[in-house]
Amino acid sequence: MIIGVLTIGNELTSGKTQDTNSSYIAREVVQRGWKMIGTISVGDDYQAIKDGLDYILARADAVVVTGGLGPTVDDITTAAIARAYNRKLFTDEGTLNHIKERFARANLNWTNNNAKQAEFPEGAEVIPNPAGTAAGFALKVNDKMITVIPGVPMEARRMLAEGVIPVLVRAFPEEQQHLERRIIKTFGLAEAAVDERLADIDLDSLGVGIGFYPNFPEIQVVLTTSGADLEKAKKNLQQAEEQVVARLADHIFGFDQDTLEGVCAALLTEKKLTLAVAESCTGGLLTDRLTDIPGSSVYLERGVVTYSNTAKTDLLGVPAEILNEFGAVSAETARLMAEGVRKLGRTDIGISTTGIAGPSGGTEKKPVGTVFIALADKDKTYCRHYRYRWDRRRIKMITSQALLLMLKRYLKGELTDE
Amino acid sequence: MIIGVLTIGNELTSGKTQDTNSSYIAREVVQRGWKMIGTISVGDDYQAIKDGLDYILARADAVVVTGGLGPTVDDITTAAIARAYNRKLFTDEGTLNHIKERFARANLNWTNNNAKQAEFPEGAEVIPNPAGTAAGFALKVNDKMITVIPGVPMEARRMLAEGVIPVLVRAFPEEQQHLERRIIKTFGLAEAAVDERLADIDLDSLGVGIGFYPNFPEIQVVLTTSGADLEKAKKNLQQAEEQVVARLADHIFGFDQDTLEGVCAALLTEKKLTLAVAESCTGGLLTDRLTDIPGSSVYLERGVVTYSNTAKTDLLGVPAEILNEFGAVSAETARLMAEGVRKLGRTDIGISTTGIAGPSGGTEKKPVGTVFIALADKDKTYCRHYRYRWDRRRIKMITSQALLLMLKRYLKGELTDE
Repeated sequence: MIIGVLTIGNELTSGKTQDTNSSYIAREVVQRGWKMIGTISVGDDYQAIKDGLDYILARADAVVVTGGLGPTVDDITTAAIARAYNRKLFTDEGTLNHIKERFARANLNWTNNNAKQAEFPEGAEVIPNPAGTAAGFALKVNDKMITVIPGVPMEARRMLAEGVIPVLVRAFPEEQQHLERRIIKTFGLAEAAVDERLADIDLDSLGVGIGFYPNFPEIQVVLTTSGADLEKAKKNLQQAEEQVVARLADHIFGFDQDTLEGVCAALLTEKKLTLAVAESCTGGLLTDRLTDIPGSSVYLERGVVTYSNTAKTDLLGVPAEILNEFGAVSAETARLMAEGVRKLGRTDIGISTTGIAGPSGGTEKKPVGTVFIALADKDKTYCRHYRYRWDRRRIKMITSQALLLMLKRYLKGELTDE
Repeated sequence: MIIGVLTIGNELTSGKTQDTNSSYIAREVVQRGWKMIGTISVGDDYQAIKDGLDYILARADAVVVTGGLGPTVDDITTAAIARAYNRKLFTDEGTLNHIKERFARANLNWTNNNAKQAEFPEGAEVIPNPAGTAAGFALKVNDKMITVIPGVPMEARRMLAEGVIPVLVRAFPEEQQHLERRIIKTFGLAEAAVDERLADIDLDSLGVGIGFYPNFPEIQVVLTTSGADLEKAKKNLQQAEEQVVARLADHIFGFDQDTLEGVCAALLTEKKLTLAVAESCTGGLLTDRLTDIPGSSVYLERGVVTYSNTAKTDLLGVPAEILNEFGAVSAETARLMAEGVRKLGRTDIGISTTGIAGPSGGTEKKPVGTVFIALADKDKTYCRHYRYRWDRRRIKMITSQALLLMLKRYLKGELTDE
């Protein structure tokens, strides 16, 4: 089944309100194995609504319409659909009573313009609104299905699940499909490099689609397949995944809902290891990410943001002579920071960042974007050096990502000396 | 001038990515006094792109297209537009060099598929991308203007302002209007409460439009006016602003591009005061926000994330007896954390957070969302207690915001005992 979305409202075309319904509806539709051709968003205007419906129904089996079902004069969705398909309006007594009851319960005065919300185009099936006064409806026009729900996201989501989807399943019973999806999350390769590594895989013959979604500093590779045979779809997806994984190898840090901090948290918890963090250029972002994971207090003993040299000496025991000789941004300082925070926090692992996030503070030898990261355990200290060419915020983000990847490799026993 | 938006990408039609560009573009267009007829969102598909362009250009003078400008095979926007209007592609040498330079600077290997991003339909004017490799373009077709920018919001927003709007102003010079805009940033009131406080202001007679944009945990109030007479527009906007400011008073923390951390940074720098931060429930987010401001090393001496009780005692000198008697989440601990970090960092001001971010760890007396924040100077310690009802991430965000607001009020001499 092919579906399109029509969102209606002057608040959308003016940009006053951010539409979140169409994205939500698309996900629900695609996850059922149906095809979404896209969304049109128009103002509260008879001609624009008719044009939008015509456009979508020329290309789709069904349309999900949201918005414009309120009681006020600018809410014209029902009237516009009735006019577009030459239907008269009728009043649904059940809906009218439901609205009147809601008014009585809320101690609101009844005004007759509210009766408008109980009117529907002839031939329509009412889709009740358990959470509000704006009922929706489904209307079959020739062999196409028009379904209409309100724009308020909470009401729209519930009525989509309880009203629209069942109506569509009944109207197009032969269309049920299984959809399988796998998200492969990578770090350290540019989008084009990911693309090139995967170019020779024949995904078409497996019936698997691929997409690349940059989500700084990650690139996500999304594999999807759908079909009437669930087992076959799963098998094809798995074959595709194996080939992708073989080619992207250690640039992959997780799958589906994984985050790099979540992967590290799970490994630390599993291995019962504790962690202390010393940040300079990442300024707290790394610890912020680690503490986004519920239960992080189990392994995170402390984090310190040692922005001043004094703090590096006081809190981490980095000798002033080292800071003077090699500078705060140096491999020597990064190593001593990781070792120092580990020792003072009495943890299994210590990690550190030091660098120049910019925009000022760079020198010819150490330009903006120069970064050192280190990881220390009781036996050994590992250190890496990078040069990033981003703005301040993105240098912080990519440095925290690089250090989390280093931690993950360490926890998996894959971290090498250089 | 009448404008439509075409957003392109399978990640949009699948619902994987929430489109925020169209709403942003709509606001920018409407605020210039131009008319927005709506948005069409389609997948990476030649026919769908052509159909979408035809639909919009039958109803509008210009279209802003976003997305599908990447280097990979699924990015076909440029090729689809060239095919739709029978244009050949040419390679723009300037853009090609720009891309190659970015690769070289980032130490990325050049692969030939990246050259695709330097190709444009014949007759197109290139719109440079200062922040990435995906350049956009403007193409006049008959008397209509097609403008194309990438889908990455940060790049799209900048190129809209620096590339698309100037192209449209040049293409339709008779349409020029002066636009004046003022963003008033608030924290601590719900959207409906902001709306209610402002309900009695007569903005219509001033010709000023108003919009509310929640940007968690802030609510932004945007006032706009446009007209042929610049001086009159400015005057009307200022009158409207005065009335809004009078009603929202101390819930306002800034204007236009201000951030709360930026306002605090400017005040600390101006007053030559130094700061040390002790975080528990915010887990580094507060220090991360403060260090997003360039030059923060001038006032930020250190930050510590004391997740364990040991760290609270070791790094902040909070006595174990206090932690045992009152708990780590208490006014007593928050005060001692702020005082301790100030003393150990030898700074003018110390600030602290402690609380239960959840989802577990709550008790009947101290449920999830219980938060204490404190600020200490050499004479006095201030403390506040909140109960938030959000998820873990948003409790971290709103707590960091509350503490920054407390810091701002302190720095302006407006912080009272309770």
